[in-house]
Amino acid sequence: MSTDEPTTGETSTDSKCGASTSDGAEASTDAGADASTETGTESACGASTTDTDETTSKCGASSSTGSSSSGCGASSSDDEQAVGSTVEDFDADPGRLLAVGLGPGQPEGMTSRAKAALSEAEHIVGYTTYVDLLPDEITESADDIYDTPMCGEVSRTEEAIDRALAGNDVAIIGSGDPNVYALAGLALEILESKGGTASMVDFEVVPGVPAAQSCGARLGAPLVNDTVSVSLSDHLTPMPTIESRLHAVAGEGFTIAIYNPWSRKRRENFQKCCEILLEHRPADTPVGIVHGAGREDEQVEIVDLGELPDLGETDLIDMTTTILVGNEDTYVWDGRMVTPRGYESKYDY
Amino acid sequence: MSTDEPTTGETSTDSKCGASTSDGAEASTDAGADASTETGTESACGASTTDTDETTSKCGASSSTGSSSSGCGASSSDDEQAVGSTVEDFDADPGRLLAVGLGPGQPEGMTSRAKAALSEAEHIVGYTTYVDLLPDEITESADDIYDTPMCGEVSRTEEAIDRALAGNDVAIIGSGDPNVYALAGLALEILESKGGTASMVDFEVVPGVPAAQSCGARLGAPLVNDTVSVSLSDHLTPMPTIESRLHAVAGEGFTIAIYNPWSRKRRENFQKCCEILLEHRPADTPVGIVHGAGREDEQVEIVDLGELPDLGETDLIDMTTTILVGNEDTYVWDGRMVTPRGYESKYDY
Repeated sequence: MSTDEPTTGETSTDSKCGASTSDGAEASTDAGADASTETGTESACGASTTDTDETTSKCGASSSTGSSSSGCGASSSDDEQAVGSTVEDFDADPGRLLAVGLGPGQPEGMTSRAKAALSEAEHIVGYTTYVDLLPDEITESADDIYDTPMCGEVSRTEEAIDRALAGNDVAIIGSGDPNVYALAGLALEILESKGGTASMVDFEVVPGVPAAQSCGARLGAPLVNDTVSVSLSDHLTPMPTIESRLHAVAGEGFTIAIYNPWSRKRRENFQKCCEILLEHRPADTPVGIVHGAGREDEQVEIVDLGELPDLGETDLIDMTTTILVGNEDTYVWDGRMVTPRGYESKYDY
Repeated sequence: MSTDEPTTGETSTDSKCGASTSDGAEASTDAGADASTETGTESACGASTTDTDETTSKCGASSSTGSSSSGCGASSSDDEQAVGSTVEDFDADPGRLLAVGLGPGQPEGMTSRAKAALSEAEHIVGYTTYVDLLPDEITESADDIYDTPMCGEVSRTEEAIDRALAGNDVAIIGSGDPNVYALAGLALEILESKGGTASMVDFEVVPGVPAAQSCGARLGAPLVNDTVSVSLSDHLTPMPTIESRLHAVAGEGFTIAIYNPWSRKRRENFQKCCEILLEHRPADTPVGIVHGAGREDEQVEIVDLGELPDLGETDLIDMTTTILVGNEDTYVWDGRMVTPRGYESKYDY
């Protein structure tokens, strides 16, 4: 299996974000929504740190420090124009806002369209881990890079929008696809809350390869039939809702891609998920596990569903893991997971 | 909205495949599994047409005609080695087999990894529509292109495998992702039936952007929460199973990506699907419809669920259409579909 994807999500370690407390750790394995341990208040973590006025930056609101620096870790201060500015606060003609999915994360997993979009962007905004994965020619061609380490997609997205409203062409990036547990929706919601419109900034989503597909490719062909994706993070979706969804789909023949399967703060969600799956599916159902796809610590394992509960406390399963649960027809052959689509019932081969 | 994806699937017009009858039209909107109107018998449609021995081709079994030609449309004949050859029939060392997802279809939607894989492949096998979309530098660098128009992924996949077993490095292509209603599984199943193994041909899947993501990007942010994909084709999955799955997920808060929504042969599946959705969701639920994404006849519409049943008989919905059904929180704003992820309940913005 080749290496092309750093699936990501909330780390299970302590937040590196120094601002305020982190009671609700949101996570995601796909684009942009990396690992927010951001609080619900105006933590301004990473936003509006206002150290220098960037050379060519047209930031009408706050301006950031230069590339690879950010105020993450420091409490908010010196905000000339704090997060929360509205469209009224900007007097320039708005620029452009693209939500760009990097796919697996490594440059080889990006689409040509994503590369072109990033090459044309004046400002690139994203989680440090992904910014670091961008090819040099892209980061060097940007006027400014705004990256924050593990500090929350809400403030970062807000910063991206402020920059676009201030007249810059901005790309906000994330791994996977902007539509999979990621920031395409958040960008539109914040834009609306600021009194802006999507049209005003020519908002566009540049799709990428989601983690389910990147991980599925590593496992063989686990997902070729009807499939569902479920996140076990109950930060934004109540656990009873997640449980109800798991019951509903486990009882049907869906293959199931599980995002954000485990973190220290909600290990019981993973155990509950395993219980529900085992209520509906035999213990020998194949389950594919991809940990840290594309990273140095990548691991790809195929196990039986019955073994899954015991793996929750191992290094194999954390927020960088995507789990693909087979259906009643899925089998393992030559180290690959295969979910037949049903051709064998119609064709001779 | 930009144009980058020819979603595909079975055409609703008559089969162009002259071989035998076509009682079960299988379709797909993603990689490779384009539009099989292939029969269950050894139609050999497109396979083993054996016109010429390709120059550098190491085809130990049948060899094909050159690029952009195929036997599709003719009945099978002159098969020196018909579809059905096993690993025993090949005396060369096996080559390599990659299942490559092109993503949206246009070159700009391909990943760098997919481009590199195709540039290195000796033989490229695929549905003519996708082969035609490949950049010239890729098709020109291949020793042989084997493409068939609308003639079935089973025989085409078998041909690809025979070529790999005969010692060639083969890439079999399709739009979207090889794991989404597509040929990654079929390739492994056929390989097994021939007595081969995945390891023998270094089988690898190169993922691509699925149609749900390409179409989601066009619509804004319809899919940022738990999502399910369901195909309405009952060629390989019985309709009662499809109905049961639709009931299960429509009753929960999943956003739903509907693949293969309509064809002339099963228009009642679409109507049944609409009925089920309307049993569980309000008539004003937003529904995004993307027809012929990336094609000249692309149309993007956002309608209410209550309007959907009447659209089945229009040009908007056919096998080149992907339909994205919102959940109870989805709304339309500034021409975009937005499914909130729940941030607004936790954050001030």
